[in-house]
Amino acid sequence: MDALAQRALAGDPRSIARFISLIERGDSGSRELMKQIYPKTGRAHTIGITGSPGAGKSTLVSCLIAAFRAAGKTVGVIAVDPSSPFTGGAVLGDRLRMQDHALDSGVFIRSMGSRGNLGGLSGATHEAALVLDACGFDVVLIETVGVGQSEVDVIRVSDTVCLVLVPGAGDDVQIMKAGIMEIADIFVVNKSDRDGAEKVAMDIKVMLDLIANRKWRPPVSLASARDGGGIDAIMENIAAHGKHLAETEEGRSRRLSKIKNEVEEILRRAVFARVESAWTFEQTEILGDIDSRATDPYSVASSLLDRVINANSYTDLRSEA
Amino acid sequence: MDALAQRALAGDPRSIARFISLIERGDSGSRELMKQIYPKTGRAHTIGITGSPGAGKSTLVSCLIAAFRAAGKTVGVIAVDPSSPFTGGAVLGDRLRMQDHALDSGVFIRSMGSRGNLGGLSGATHEAALVLDACGFDVVLIETVGVGQSEVDVIRVSDTVCLVLVPGAGDDVQIMKAGIMEIADIFVVNKSDRDGAEKVAMDIKVMLDLIANRKWRPPVSLASARDGGGIDAIMENIAAHGKHLAETEEGRSRRLSKIKNEVEEILRRAVFARVESAWTFEQTEILGDIDSRATDPYSVASSLLDRVINANSYTDLRSEA
Repeated sequence: MDALAQRALAGDPRSIARFISLIERGDSGSRELMKQIYPKTGRAHTIGITGSPGAGKSTLVSCLIAAFRAAGKTVGVIAVDPSSPFTGGAVLGDRLRMQDHALDSGVFIRSMGSRGNLGGLSGATHEAALVLDACGFDVVLIETVGVGQSEVDVIRVSDTVCLVLVPGAGDDVQIMKAGIMEIADIFVVNKSDRDGAEKVAMDIKVMLDLIANRKWRPPVSLASARDGGGIDAIMENIAAHGKHLAETEEGRSRRLSKIKNEVEEILRRAVFARVESAWTFEQTEILGDIDSRATDPYSVASSLLDRVINANSYTDLRSEA
Repeated sequence: MDALAQRALAGDPRSIARFISLIERGDSGSRELMKQIYPKTGRAHTIGITGSPGAGKSTLVSCLIAAFRAAGKTVGVIAVDPSSPFTGGAVLGDRLRMQDHALDSGVFIRSMGSRGNLGGLSGATHEAALVLDACGFDVVLIETVGVGQSEVDVIRVSDTVCLVLVPGAGDDVQIMKAGIMEIADIFVVNKSDRDGAEKVAMDIKVMLDLIANRKWRPPVSLASARDGGGIDAIMENIAAHGKHLAETEEGRSRRLSKIKNEVEEILRRAVFARVESAWTFEQTEILGDIDSRATDPYSVASSLLDRVINANSYTDLRSEA
């Protein structure tokens, strides 16, 4: 096994960070590393925390880290900002309090902000979560910044999705639109000291009644993450959902469908990488022939695919994929 | 050549409509038809009309149809609503005045509202525009409902992108965010009788100064589509941009880059269709082996790709692609 993978699996934080950087850059070597560590994955409970900016997600994450640590569990955190090629500024500032845990070797915190690598943000986030899983963290928390479609894609890789809402934020429409209600397993109404917190909780329950029946009925709880209120109930809900996933047929089929997406994502990336590299000079010349209608894009796509298929041997592909 | 393609190329409206329906459904036979008609494409001027709901896009489109008809040109129109699997209701209502042209055989109007076919909405819209082009329409107008990312993707297939704004709509932020400013070739400030129309036009010009230099400086004009005011200036701007595209190196490189996207889109669809069909029963069983970590998604993706490559002969693919 590669030395970097070995050191990461042994728990060396700098090696884990370097490993995730390779993934983030879409480095082709990272695929081989992922394959090597994959047998060690599947033990962590991956929890996605989403909700609109200002809902107090980072504070909640910090409370959850403390609670898991108190229960003797190690925690890896991935903080995702899809809108920025860098993570920093306000976002990092908001997350500063997470750094309370910076000196705790049972906690690893990593920001991811790149977009545009071949696998897209959700592919990279998922692989980073798998790395933390393989490196032995009992819990992996994935926190997103906003509630758009990218966040849904990112958060979908989690075992348990926790949606954080606050009274008076008026972002219900955006959340409904993005389809987050449907993928949330646990609801938290944060800043419960604000007016209307009970009403928000009630509204969510009414909406849940309208959503098609599932075996798991998402619990809704109030919290005040700033002073640690309500964290116990959230921890119980997370544990209950983890148990549900481990013990039911629904949990298994959800896991299998995630694995299917994973395979297709890898396949897609392998094919795209090959297509990109198949655009040689002559192929680019052919664009002019299409422009003059001497040929057509359908025929060129076919020949390009032939080229993609014949260019590399299957063995090469294995290491690429 | 296929009888449907022949009748469509001869200008039969029902055959054109059926052809576009095949595309919309992502029917595999439509690829072969597209290939057959492709040599006839490349003559129409494709104009995308975008802008927020309520900006008066449909009224403007109706004015442009009349103006092009008066100039002796035939016009095909594609009205796109990405958010809806059907086009109807309010949207169709807004577009009713377009039906002033319903009895004019020099005008063909088609709504597209499906999503989720393999090529995505922008692929289908582009192919529908190519069909209208091949069928001999001199001008193809593509109108979108909103200003989100889907609209940007759809409108990007046009030769000339026209962005319609209105005073006091306050949607500047959304438009900036979606990156529409950058892709617009022509700006129209509609409802010019409203307060602040001149200021909106001025603001756009200031913003254009901030955007990186291009050979084409997008013109900004005022209009009052309801009573036909300002249409002449828009027609002149459209003609000037068409001339720019036809005569400059920038126009050519823009065309080639659109063609490259087209080829990659076709390739992507062909590969996805094959990947979908490669998931046989045994492959699905393997998901359980990944779940138990007996194997890993990277190895399964490789074998699936082998299968995709070997499953169909290249000849089959040609007709698929």
